[in-house]
Amino acid sequence: MTADTAAREQGLDLMPRFDANGLITAVVTDAASGDLLMVAHMNVEALRLTVESGDAWYWSRSRAELWRKGATSGHTQKVSELRIDCDQDAVWLKVEQTGPACHTGAHSCFYRAVRSPGGGLVRV
Amino acid sequence: MTADTAAREQGLDLMPRFDANGLITAVVTDAASGDLLMVAHMNVEALRLTVESGDAWYWSRSRAELWRKGATSGHTQKVSELRIDCDQDAVWLKVEQTGPACHTGAHSCFYRAVRSPGGGLVRV
Repeated sequence: MTADTAAREQGLDLMPRFDANGLITAVVTDAASGDLLMVAHMNVEALRLTVESGDAWYWSRSRAELWRKGATSGHTQKVSELRIDCDQDAVWLKVEQTGPACHTGAHSCFYRAVRSPGGGLVRV
Repeated sequence: MTADTAAREQGLDLMPRFDANGLITAVVTDAASGDLLMVAHMNVEALRLTVESGDAWYWSRSRAELWRKGATSGHTQKVSELRIDCDQDAVWLKVEQTGPACHTGAHSCFYRAVRSPGGGLVRV
């Protein structure tokens, strides 16, 4: 294990490991129910704004812009806890979600299950 | 909305949207406790093997190889439910985890919280 890896995995300094596109993965769960709501991405600025403000900010890959969740929809996310994983390339936001988290109007983006075996989808 | 987007978001066919590296994000939670355990990645083959076998398979980006979770460590994951998100670029595995999920020996990879504001880490 390199010193860099050890520091990142065991240390108490925030050393996010952004990918080739400058992004880390953000996993978002409902602080009350524990439900997985959505998966999004953050660049360094989105992470900084989230840590400083307590509101969830992301980087929209499709629109190529910084985005405060709910800025247009009103479906904001207040961050109650932010965690980071072992190699610091993913964060976990526990949020107080106002309204639906998904742009489709669903509570969670994960509204379909994959049948196993077979692979078709079923609404849950 | 294009017909492709509508089919992907509203349909009941599995149409995973792999990124430029051929990967989708896999979010893994403990089926019993609901805890977020880890975030990993799947290519088309890992997804197919997971759906067909009920065991969690991933693509290791660092080792560039297909990987059945627990094949060497014994810390396997039996998938109790597999869901896919609105635009089909992320899956959610609810698993029966044997042993720790994290390679560090931690139950979950998310063993540190980010202080807000400030940004230092604290073990949880």
